[in-house]
Amino acid sequence: MTDPWATFGADLHLDLTAGRGLRAGLTEALREAARSGRLAAGTRLPSSRTLAADLGIARNTVAEAYAELVAEGWLTARRGSGTRVAERARPRRSSAAAAPVRRPARTGPAYSLIPGSPDLGGFPRAAWLSAARRALTAAPNEAFGYASDPRGRVELRQALAGYLARARGVYADPERIVLCAGFLHGLALLAGVLRARRVREVAVEEYGLDFHRDLLVRAGLRTRPLGLDGEGARTGELTATSGAVLLTPAHQFPTGVALTPARRAAAVDWARTSGGLILEDDYDGEFRYDRQPVGALQGLDPDRVVYLGTASKSLAPGLRMGWMVVPPGLLEEVLAAKGPTEWASGAPDQLTLAEFITSGAYDRHVRGMRLRYRRRRDELVAAVGDRVAVSGIAAGLHAVLDLPGGTERSVLQAAAWQDLALHGLGRFRHPEAGALPRDAVVVGYGTPSDSAWSPTLAALAAALP
Amino acid sequence: MTDPWATFGADLHLDLTAGRGLRAGLTEALREAARSGRLAAGTRLPSSRTLAADLGIARNTVAEAYAELVAEGWLTARRGSGTRVAERARPRRSSAAAAPVRRPARTGPAYSLIPGSPDLGGFPRAAWLSAARRALTAAPNEAFGYASDPRGRVELRQALAGYLARARGVYADPERIVLCAGFLHGLALLAGVLRARRVREVAVEEYGLDFHRDLLVRAGLRTRPLGLDGEGARTGELTATSGAVLLTPAHQFPTGVALTPARRAAAVDWARTSGGLILEDDYDGEFRYDRQPVGALQGLDPDRVVYLGTASKSLAPGLRMGWMVVPPGLLEEVLAAKGPTEWASGAPDQLTLAEFITSGAYDRHVRGMRLRYRRRRDELVAAVGDRVAVSGIAAGLHAVLDLPGGTERSVLQAAAWQDLALHGLGRFRHPEAGALPRDAVVVGYGTPSDSAWSPTLAALAAALP
Repeated sequence: MTDPWATFGADLHLDLTAGRGLRAGLTEALREAARSGRLAAGTRLPSSRTLAADLGIARNTVAEAYAELVAEGWLTARRGSGTRVAERARPRRSSAAAAPVRRPARTGPAYSLIPGSPDLGGFPRAAWLSAARRALTAAPNEAFGYASDPRGRVELRQALAGYLARARGVYADPERIVLCAGFLHGLALLAGVLRARRVREVAVEEYGLDFHRDLLVRAGLRTRPLGLDGEGARTGELTATSGAVLLTPAHQFPTGVALTPARRAAAVDWARTSGGLILEDDYDGEFRYDRQPVGALQGLDPDRVVYLGTASKSLAPGLRMGWMVVPPGLLEEVLAAKGPTEWASGAPDQLTLAEFITSGAYDRHVRGMRLRYRRRRDELVAAVGDRVAVSGIAAGLHAVLDLPGGTERSVLQAAAWQDLALHGLGRFRHPEAGALPRDAVVVGYGTPSDSAWSPTLAALAAALP
Repeated sequence: MTDPWATFGADLHLDLTAGRGLRAGLTEALREAARSGRLAAGTRLPSSRTLAADLGIARNTVAEAYAELVAEGWLTARRGSGTRVAERARPRRSSAAAAPVRRPARTGPAYSLIPGSPDLGGFPRAAWLSAARRALTAAPNEAFGYASDPRGRVELRQALAGYLARARGVYADPERIVLCAGFLHGLALLAGVLRARRVREVAVEEYGLDFHRDLLVRAGLRTRPLGLDGEGARTGELTATSGAVLLTPAHQFPTGVALTPARRAAAVDWARTSGGLILEDDYDGEFRYDRQPVGALQGLDPDRVVYLGTASKSLAPGLRMGWMVVPPGLLEEVLAAKGPTEWASGAPDQLTLAEFITSGAYDRHVRGMRLRYRRRRDELVAAVGDRVAVSGIAAGLHAVLDLPGGTERSVLQAAAWQDLALHGLGRFRHPEAGALPRDAVVVGYGTPSDSAWSPTLAALAAALP
């Protein structure tokens, strides 16, 4: 039978020049594809039988064209390896599919304690793949279609609702969970909603991530710094000029304190009185080492708090998976901001994360990582604790090392000499913060791989005063 | 040893009321969690040993609290199934993790020929999972971290470069490939770039998707309809008032014609003379049934054409995976619009697609689907071809059935009576199109599952005049 597209082989596009002999036209088209670099050196061509069937011409014609180009040096033919485009010195317009994968050249320091990343070597590949197999095998066909719900797959929202209620004390109805491609995507959606509500100002903690503040500013919002002390953000100082406040209650980033019950109550009181919203960034709430984690602030008033969580610290930032639990009165606006469908997150990863959570693999993974990070934190304290004070609760993936006044810059310089990437506390300070600058470094002890951990710690110890 | 977080079990968050007896506090916290619905009916609680270790209290205290709540009816305890929250009639604040997954109730017609979707039952689950296993096993640790390149994973860009060059005739340097979460994401990025370049107008084909036009309008661009005939869009009519033109050269959507070589040359001439950009939407270029597909227009002038491709028709829309091949002079602006990192697409799906392509599974899948769709198109023509004209080339996932003048509305009504969702050609017409409205229906024969295909075709036949 002649079903040109029935054969299983590789597709090859060729523009056969009209008005020439078939063999000459094919030869020229192949030659041009190799010469111009469109077909990269090493590219394997279809067998002559397959290409002949595809083009609807005699197999012999293709075989002769191949032979001619082999003779000219454009192609190579080896038994067992088929016909391939030859390696040639020539200007390349197109990079090679067959070329070895280029990895970005390693630039920058050998060691890193930049906060914000989990130990990527801890990603549970086998358990994830096993969840993917179960999830994709069981998925209904419609899961692979255009998403019908802008909130994301219901399987994942139900798994998250159960997990967040159980482990973080969140009132989490799957109907009010909205998936996002990481925390920043969620914050961008909320910033748009706030602007549409004519909010002009968002209060933020006076130490925090500059790119969170920048995102709010780009959305047209002013940020007002809120003082911080050992009890967390001074929520009693919130005023009606702010339409929302962005908080990290479980583990302030980067100072590492937990928001006390009195300060939590003050935040909720402010929200109720002023009509403001609390945006709760629960980025590493699962990781507490000395006691049970403090529950989410959202549990105090689900109508006033937007809870934002992420898989970026607990699993991997590369998953691009975050979630919001949205108050009922805000849901419609958030969905309008997101658009009519779930267009960002792929269904396979959503379904796999749902299965990963419901099967218990997520809890197992978090507990395993807790042990690893706790051990690292203990080793950090042991290595430096007699020279500098380690502040912040025993939690998360980072700690603050307080330095003698005026030494932050020189410690960072010393770290650079040790080939160690390290962030000072100063870079996290809001430009209008009221507090005097405080000399300290923020140590992301979750960042190194297990094998890099000991030399990284040694480099840090050598850099400290 | 007492390592409270060392045990592998489920996490449970509890707020123990301070100043009460431990057992009374624990009992009240659990009762409240069940009563309020935070812990859904059916939720399995940690074993008393695990919870006691987590809370740092005696196991007996937990066991007694559990026993009390079982006695009160809040919990149930069964050997082998552990302790669970009881089913109770009560107002639920939170939906249940343990509740059966709710599927949206099927609303709307039983059969659908709405164009735009591949047969979702054809998604190659086993081959995809097998590619995922190879890809995730081989991936370097950094793949799971925050993306360092806003273009997306280099593995996928290299795989796409090779594939697009080979199968679609695209000059595709991996350095100039930018991943996006589907075509609309790519179009949104380009619309932003055009606006920033002070472009005011984009020419579009006079028949096309309204949500593509709407996206351009929301970005602040005017759309100008370009006439269409049997040779495709009348690109000779492009003027300097348009800063860009959006085309579907391989297979016009929805009229189904291919852009002729003369019209392709006219588009490129316009772009070179006016400095305009061509946006090439190659949504289903892989699917041609009567001959080799026409190569991409981009091959004619890679400096003037942005090539946009997607996995939404060839694999599944649920992957949310698309790609652009961007001219060198535009790359910086596109990346600035996308932002400093690849924040939308997850690394596992990107790596899996890369492996799926390089292993040859993508070619095999496309060829297999080609056979399925070709057979369906043949059956469609056989079923209706004696009553209405089937227009458009033998390609893609849809065909246009031309109707007698003035009958489009009554055929759509008849389809509704047959419980068949069907789109008329009229809904794709640009509001300012110059051509007289043409009565026709656009049949998406890729949409039904294999099992639904025959009854769907029968419903269509019954609806036609």
